Amino acid sequence: MALFRAPRPGLSSPSVKGDIPAATVSRLPVYLRSLGDLPPSQDTCSSEQLASIAGVNSAQVRKDLSHLGSYGTRGVGYHVADLREQLRHALGLTRGYAVAIIGAGNLGSALSNYAGFGSWGFGVAAIFDNDPARVGELVGGLAVEPLSHLEEIVAERGITIGIIATPAGAAQEVADRLTKAGVRSILNFAPAVIHVTDGVEVRRVDLSTELQILTFHQQR
Amino acid sequence: MALFRAPRPGLSSPSVKGDIPAATVSRLPVYLRSLGDLPPSQDTCSSEQLASIAGVNSAQVRKDLSHLGSYGTRGVGYHVADLREQLRHALGLTRGYAVAIIGAGNLGSALSNYAGFGSWGFGVAAIFDNDPARVGELVGGLAVEPLSHLEEIVAERGITIGIIATPAGAAQEVADRLTKAGVRSILNFAPAVIHVTDGVEVRRVDLSTELQILTFHQQR
Repeated sequence: MALFRAPRPGLSSPSVKGDIPAATVSRLPVYLRSLGDLPPSQDTCSSEQLASIAGVNSAQVRKDLSHLGSYGTRGVGYHVADLREQLRHALGLTRGYAVAIIGAGNLGSALSNYAGFGSWGFGVAAIFDNDPARVGELVGGLAVEPLSHLEEIVAERGITIGIIATPAGAAQEVADRLTKAGVRSILNFAPAVIHVTDGVEVRRVDLSTELQILTFHQQR
Repeated sequence: MALFRAPRPGLSSPSVKGDIPAATVSRLPVYLRSLGDLPPSQDTCSSEQLASIAGVNSAQVRKDLSHLGSYGTRGVGYHVADLREQLRHALGLTRGYAVAIIGAGNLGSALSNYAGFGSWGFGVAAIFDNDPARVGELVGGLAVEPLSHLEEIVAERGITIGIIATPAGAAQEVADRLTKAGVRSILNFAPAVIHVTDGVEVRRVDLSTELQILTFHQQR
C-alpha cells in the first residue's frame, strides 16, 4: 500500500513478544531521537546516559527496551547502531508513509511546509481543502486538491496516514471519509473529539488543551 | 503580572480541595469544550451526555467533576452555565494570558496566526526570532522581534507563557532564558527534551512522536 516501501533483507525482525504497553510505545520515539543526540563517534550507550537525554529514569529505560528484546550488556550498555535499528523497526520506520493533510489553512499549510516530516520517512502526498478558492494554490510544493477527490487520491497514492487540520465542525466527517477510504491512522489537530471504528488509531494534538493545562498549574 | 487580569467580584472561588490528579486536569479542557458543543438552549446536561461528547465514560466524568466540588443533581444532571464557570475557574481561564512565541519559522508563524488563541483568552504579545532578516517582518499582525530583547519584552508585557517553536538545538537555551525572565509555563514544539527548574511547567507537543506512535500501531 505505502509508497517507498523498502524491505531490508539483511535485517532480522526484532524479537517483540506480545503487546507493548502504550506508555512504553509513547517513549520509544523519544529514545530513538535521544540516540541521535549522541556524538556520532559513540558506539555504546548506558541506560543512564540514554535516560538523562530522554528525561526519564534509567530503570524505565531498561524496562521499556526489554519489551523490544533489547537488554544491553552489563558494564557496556547498549550498542547504539543496533538499538537504533531495533527502535526503527519496532516503530515501523524502516518503510515510508504517504500522508494526506486535510485543511489548507494556517496550520495545514505549516504542516505541509514542515521539513521534519521528510527526514522521518513521512511524505506529504496530498493536501486538501473544501474551499474552491484554495484549490490549485501551491502549499509546501503541492497543489491544494478539492476535498471531493479525497477517496480516489487516497487510493491512487497509497495514503495510509491522514492529518486533520480542519475547523472542529468538519473533523468528524473528514475522519469518516478517511476511514472509509482505508486510512487506519489519523492525527487530529482539530479541537474536536472524533469517533472512529475499531482498528483505526487516532492521536490528538490539541493546542487549547495543552494551554489550559498550563494555566491550571499557573494559577495554583 | 498578566495583561487583561479581570477579577470577577461576583464569583466565589470554586471548592477545589487538595490536589487534582494530572489525568483529571488533562480532561477538564475537554469537558469545557464539550459543554460548548451543547445546543445553546440546553440548561442542564447529564454525565452520560457529557461523557459521550467528550469521548470518555460517564463514571469518569462524575469522578473528575467531583474534584471541582461539582456533583450534579440526581435525575437532572449538571447545570451547564454553573459547570462552565467552575471549569473556567479551575483552569484559570477567568483572566487573560500574554503569550510569547519564540521562533518565527513555519510553525511559529502558523501559531501566531492561529485565531483559536484569542477565543480562549490567550493573547500573542510577542514573536521572536534570532535571524536578523526576519526581525521586523509582520507575522499574525505582530512585528518579529530580535531574540536579544526577550527578557525586557517578557517583563514589559507581563508575558507568562512561552511557546518554543525553534529548532531542537536552540530549545534548551530559549527555555533557560524564558525561565530566568520569570516565565513559569512553557509549551514546547521543538523536537527536544528540555530541562527546567522546579515550579516551571512544561507541556510538549511533538509531531514526530505522535506520528511514530501511529506507525507503531499501523505496522502491527
